Amino acid sequence: MTAPPAAPTDRPRLGVGMVGYAFMGVAHAQAWRNAPRFFDLPLAVDMAVVAGRNEAAVRAAAATQGWRDVETDWKALVGRDDVDLVDVCTPGDTHAEIAIAALEAGKHVLCEKPLANSVAEAEAMAAAAALAPGVAMVGFTYRRVPAIQLARSLVADGRLGTVRHVRAQYLQDWIADPAAPLSWRLDKQKAGSGALGDIGAHIVDLAQFITGEQVTGVSAVLETFVRERPVADSSSGLSASSSSGRTGPVTVDDAAIFLGRMSGGGLATFEATRFAYGRKNAIRLEINGSAGSLAFDFEDMNVLHYFDAAEPAATAGFRRIVVTEPEHPFVGAWWPAGHGLGYEHAFTHQVVDLVGGIATGAAPTPTFADGLQVQRVLDAVERSAGADSVWTPTKEM
Amino acid sequence: MTAPPAAPTDRPRLGVGMVGYAFMGVAHAQAWRNAPRFFDLPLAVDMAVVAGRNEAAVRAAAATQGWRDVETDWKALVGRDDVDLVDVCTPGDTHAEIAIAALEAGKHVLCEKPLANSVAEAEAMAAAAALAPGVAMVGFTYRRVPAIQLARSLVADGRLGTVRHVRAQYLQDWIADPAAPLSWRLDKQKAGSGALGDIGAHIVDLAQFITGEQVTGVSAVLETFVRERPVADSSSGLSASSSSGRTGPVTVDDAAIFLGRMSGGGLATFEATRFAYGRKNAIRLEINGSAGSLAFDFEDMNVLHYFDAAEPAATAGFRRIVVTEPEHPFVGAWWPAGHGLGYEHAFTHQVVDLVGGIATGAAPTPTFADGLQVQRVLDAVERSAGADSVWTPTKEM
Amino acid sequence: MTAPPAAPTDRPRLGVGMVGYAFMGVAHAQAWRNAPRFFDLPLAVDMAVVAGRNEAAVRAAAATQGWRDVETDWKALVGRDDVDLVDVCTPGDTHAEIAIAALEAGKHVLCEKPLANSVAEAEAMAAAAALAPGVAMVGFTYRRVPAIQLARSLVADGRLGTVRHVRAQYLQDWIADPAAPLSWRLDKQKAGSGALGDIGAHIVDLAQFITGEQVTGVSAVLETFVRERPVADSSSGLSASSSSGRTGPVTVDDAAIFLGRMSGGGLATFEATRFAYGRKNAIRLEINGSAGSLAFDFEDMNVLHYFDAAEPAATAGFRRIVVTEPEHPFVGAWWPAGHGLGYEHAFTHQVVDLVGGIATGAAPTPTFADGLQVQRVLDAVERSAGADSVWTPTKEM
Amino acid sequence: MTAPPAAPTDRPRLGVGMVGYAFMGVAHAQAWRNAPRFFDLPLAVDMAVVAGRNEAAVRAAAATQGWRDVETDWKALVGRDDVDLVDVCTPGDTHAEIAIAALEAGKHVLCEKPLANSVAEAEAMAAAAALAPGVAMVGFTYRRVPAIQLARSLVADGRLGTVRHVRAQYLQDWIADPAAPLSWRLDKQKAGSGALGDIGAHIVDLAQFITGEQVTGVSAVLETFVRERPVADSSSGLSASSSSGRTGPVTVDDAAIFLGRMSGGGLATFEATRFAYGRKNAIRLEINGSAGSLAFDFEDMNVLHYFDAAEPAATAGFRRIVVTEPEHPFVGAWWPAGHGLGYEHAFTHQVVDLVGGIATGAAPTPTFADGLQVQRVLDAVERSAGADSVWTPTKEM
Repeated sequence: MTAPPAAPTDRPRLGVGMVGYAFMGVAHAQAWRNAPRFFDLPLAVDMAVVAGRNEAAVRAAAATQGWRDVETDWKALVGRDDVDLVDVCTPGDTHAEIAIAALEAGKHVLCEKPLANSVAEAEAMAAAAALAPGVAMVGFTYRRVPAIQLARSLVADGRLGTVRHVRAQYLQDWIADPAAPLSWRLDKQKAGSGALGDIGAHIVDLAQFITGEQVTGVSAVLETFVRERPVADSSSGLSASSSSGRTGPVTVDDAAIFLGRMSGGGLATFEATRFAYGRKNAIRLEINGSAGSLAFDFEDMNVLHYFDAAEPAATAGFRRIVVTEPEHPFVGAWWPAGHGLGYEHAFTHQVVDLVGGIATGAAPTPTFADGLQVQRVLDAVERSAGADSVWTPTKEM
Repeated sequence: MTAPPAAPTDRPRLGVGMVGYAFMGVAHAQAWRNAPRFFDLPLAVDMAVVAGRNEAAVRAAAATQGWRDVETDWKALVGRDDVDLVDVCTPGDTHAEIAIAALEAGKHVLCEKPLANSVAEAEAMAAAAALAPGVAMVGFTYRRVPAIQLARSLVADGRLGTVRHVRAQYLQDWIADPAAPLSWRLDKQKAGSGALGDIGAHIVDLAQFITGEQVTGVSAVLETFVRERPVADSSSGLSASSSSGRTGPVTVDDAAIFLGRMSGGGLATFEATRFAYGRKNAIRLEINGSAGSLAFDFEDMNVLHYFDAAEPAATAGFRRIVVTEPEHPFVGAWWPAGHGLGYEHAFTHQVVDLVGGIATGAAPTPTFADGLQVQRVLDAVERSAGADSVWTPTKEM
Repeated sequence: MTAPPAAPTDRPRLGVGMVGYAFMGVAHAQAWRNAPRFFDLPLAVDMAVVAGRNEAAVRAAAATQGWRDVETDWKALVGRDDVDLVDVCTPGDTHAEIAIAALEAGKHVLCEKPLANSVAEAEAMAAAAALAPGVAMVGFTYRRVPAIQLARSLVADGRLGTVRHVRAQYLQDWIADPAAPLSWRLDKQKAGSGALGDIGAHIVDLAQFITGEQVTGVSAVLETFVRERPVADSSSGLSASSSSGRTGPVTVDDAAIFLGRMSGGGLATFEATRFAYGRKNAIRLEINGSAGSLAFDFEDMNVLHYFDAAEPAATAGFRRIVVTEPEHPFVGAWWPAGHGLGYEHAFTHQVVDLVGGIATGAAPTPTFADGLQVQRVLDAVERSAGADSVWTPTKEM
Repeated sequence: MTAPPAAPTDRPRLGVGMVGYAFMGVAHAQAWRNAPRFFDLPLAVDMAVVAGRNEAAVRAAAATQGWRDVETDWKALVGRDDVDLVDVCTPGDTHAEIAIAALEAGKHVLCEKPLANSVAEAEAMAAAAALAPGVAMVGFTYRRVPAIQLARSLVADGRLGTVRHVRAQYLQDWIADPAAPLSWRLDKQKAGSGALGDIGAHIVDLAQFITGEQVTGVSAVLETFVRERPVADSSSGLSASSSSGRTGPVTVDDAAIFLGRMSGGGLATFEATRFAYGRKNAIRLEINGSAGSLAFDFEDMNVLHYFDAAEPAATAGFRRIVVTEPEHPFVGAWWPAGHGLGYEHAFTHQVVDLVGGIATGAAPTPTFADGLQVQRVLDAVERSAGADSVWTPTKEM
């Protein structure tokens, strides 16, 4: 028997063009490949083209990641007829230009977070999105970890009552060693900020997403513990095995800590750092409400802890919910209960909701307006951290 | 720019034909798709064909999973010239026939576990593998969870010393509810055994793999707690939402518990059950040696706990190793530290080692001989459980 | 103001005489001192006298522990008029003689576990208790850890349904090092058995207590990993800092593993070992029933984990109950919620229930009959472990 | 044999007088009773007298707690010749007057925390202590939890390197329910502040103690979520079962969150709340340094987690140190390894160090100067929280 298997040719095609192919590009490509394998998408994803400046490198990436074609100029990618959606996986300083061009060309856009490196850029992007026919989504991917989705739904269902406290931490240690080299992520021009924009943005978004509230004010401190680092021979990646002997300045924050006031009246604490030795990617969220509490740690990403204050005291306790049941968001499409998912799966779920939104016309969240709101919080953090008035000394002079 | 990206055509092709496409088939297909995306394989994987008896269903599976072609008779698949490797994902009662035919046809074979439903079948398979030119591997996939690989390497490096204790549990709860319907997994003809062969086989293999020893004797009990169950309208899957009103007998064990003696003199306890409410896929291993200890729980699969008895008492303690570093087995090919993997990744790692073994001629483990050894242990468990002599009453008559 | 505070002289006096003053004696004395400070006892405890063979040592112990008087012959203690209750804290080989004498003298008896070193002795003790006017209680102290009490009450209230599985482990590592010296606990004459009687007895008792069932049959293995050990200059304690250079034989088991059948039809696994490096006093109990599950680990003794199978799947999970609420057994007498208790508090709770039982005439459990039942299980373990028929080899000859 | 046991009459007597006998008094009395039973104190503790205004109540407390005599006026207690040390267990508004009077009378003083309700009072107390011959210690008891002592010693030994981050939380939930009644702890006149002084003081002290540094500046928010509460018939305790129907104002903070700058350049976050449902007494400390990290949670008080950044990446991980070994601070005096301690034991350790300091003349920490430093931090928190300049809005107007 040699007839080819039936292809899902009955559904409309969605041509995808991705700009950038490094860490985020790898994760996005995996999502574009996986989504149609595990979910019944309303559109037929066509991984049309990937763009990068180095032709040899982008060709290799295309082969590895499964893109049909390559471009060495993102503008060419945006201009292609076979591209319906532009997936922006470049450093933050290029997000605004690419995303706005794509929106103006009538494309849908998925843009990696943070939306931009400044509020002004983010405002321009949100304005472009408001005018454009296409869907515009920002890649706060962790929203689509199933345990986070469950957390959101518990809050939305009133299971927590009024939110009193949010404590949010994003702890890493990949540059705790002063010998770790410079990379674009430590360069303010490219990255906009350091821990704040890279990982702090995620916990601001998650805190707002889960509570359904906004951070209305902050009091903040930024710190750069190691101000000079070795220059790696190649500064394009997250790691470098050899050093040039030269050093260069770190121009972004190593850590950001801030207090926040939630729009519902609750208090929040935020901490984003790359200097927490032993914590690799610990996104921790704990929310206390007037009716219950939630706790999450990405180091145990398939689990959500939930405390129901209505339980009798003798048997009350945080429930360790293993979020791998068919009843849980997205999970039923994958494996049986207890067969946990990994980091990459949230990217697939993001594609599922994005494609669904494009098909139905319902804008999938987080929108560019949501991304702008996060950007405003990050901006307020930077302004607060720059103000002398933040600190009250423990000893009056 | 429209030239297609460079394809990895420089490496020899490996045509893969898979028999069966349900749960295990889905996981294997994902592995065949992913392995070349994340690892530099020496052979170019061609997902040639998938076989299943129901043509419509197998065509749908082929489209979803990415197989080029379909067959409705596994023998046709085995006979195809474009198939170099046969991947057996069917229930256990068909393993021997398919795998032996494939080996005799000169194919490589990857066979799901347990190797067979009886020692006799497993012996025939191991004998066929010994004579055949192809590589024969049995799919004890959990061996290639990175934390398990790390556990093995710590023991192999002598970090545990002489093994004193193995305690191994595989706890699930998917049929703890008496209303859960019959499926082929509860039918002795198809499945060979129940919890014993389905999940007990895994912990026997893992205990032997990590310690590098064999279980030389057992004392065992098997139990079926719920002996009649509803017959589902469709008995082909793990779950059924509707029932026919009829009931049928459960002919396999719900739970298996056994003591074991390791070849190095240590003691082992094993427990495999589908009746541990609240435990979804809890594969727990704890090993105590004369120089240290290890502990693992698949519910937290990216973590290995290690105790080094040589540490000073004041600072000794089980180290919670987050097994997501570039230094850890397989992990560097995926994501940065702390960005954990999921259940499916071990299948990809299995493919990586299998393809590597085929390319180099080095037989990848677990071989069919390893699978036979596990089968012997399962057989001893069944014989022990059938013997009256196992029990000593607490009150002499 | 100099008048003395009001003494609780209105309640009847209970004169206590304790035989033995080492580890267990220290714990019992702390309980006798603490119980009246935190609980409203119906009798006024008088710590009358402690007995030990070495006069200087027993005098020092009396001063430290708060006993009014000393004896160097336990028979003199039993004969004293000011002793209403004899608290037996000696090694197991002396339990029967002392306890029976005390019962025959009309005293109440609290006897450390295991009740005796043999079933015959335990039978004699239970028979004596049945005839005697006094209360006879055996010191399975861990029953009165609040989390264990809560576990029992949940099972008794039907929250677990029919018990399917018990898995019980008692893991220590204090003689995992072959250089650890001999002590009376490694001498069969004194201790009766090793890990089996010392710690295995506890988990047998706890499994029976929590489930309300009995172990009716076992299949067992005992092992002594290190058969010769250094002789310490003083062999009276748990540890010895200097060695004589000589070695002597270990005549008890280092580890005991066994399967058990519960009287309600459930399966049990037991493991008691002193060779689990990194586990200090890990009493672990996990019980799966037809309606829920429980889990406990003494390394986190103020916590009980409870899974309720009736919860909706989306929010079901093991509840981590911090057992420090006023609603929990015994806890309200101590500190506010979250201010955890320690090892010693269970001894105080044991005294509370013992004194309450004496005052009301209701025999407090565990009775000597309960202790005898545990002894029968331990005896069956030893008989099973001595039988050739336990093992089924994995390879037929 | 009827001779009384030898009393430790060879050591000098230390007469103790305690003012206040509620929650803290109960804990202190237990410590005074226990310390001589488990530790070899250089002085013979005489629990001479307890003072309280209600004679019947204080007599009952004296009988229960083991005090020889009572006073209804604390001044009489301070004036007694048989009192060498005054133990102040009253609400914070009375600390200064009592402690200063006792110091001026030549007594040693142990004063519960916070040292005072204002910086001015604390300064006066520290000044009095500096002039007085007696020892003056403030009861930041959690310092003497063995795991905290171990944490301090690891930092002092350089195992953490330069401190980068402190994150400190003290989470309770006992007034999260708006129906919880008013008590003196919710009255600013009596308590000085709410969560800030009651529990925030502890984490400020612990952060400074473990790091050996001081908090030099803060940015803070205080919040009172529930501003009116029922008036209980008796407002003297932590709980009340009946309500008068009336309500009254809460005049203290329910929660305090603040950022801190450590004197060594590190960043700190602090959170103290009584509104974290499900957290009963969760004192959490995590410290990241340039050479390693520590983590502690009082809900698992016998454990300290330690990450050593010098370990090879493949086997690095937070060590779960069960702090119950003879090598650990204070632990050897109690029970064998793994037999954990409880909340109250830290009070005993406090007495041990206090009595040792009195005997040797070496001032035991925390001194009144240490208490003053904590008070300065709390004061800065209140000043910061009262300043408009703390908040930066997320949206510029």
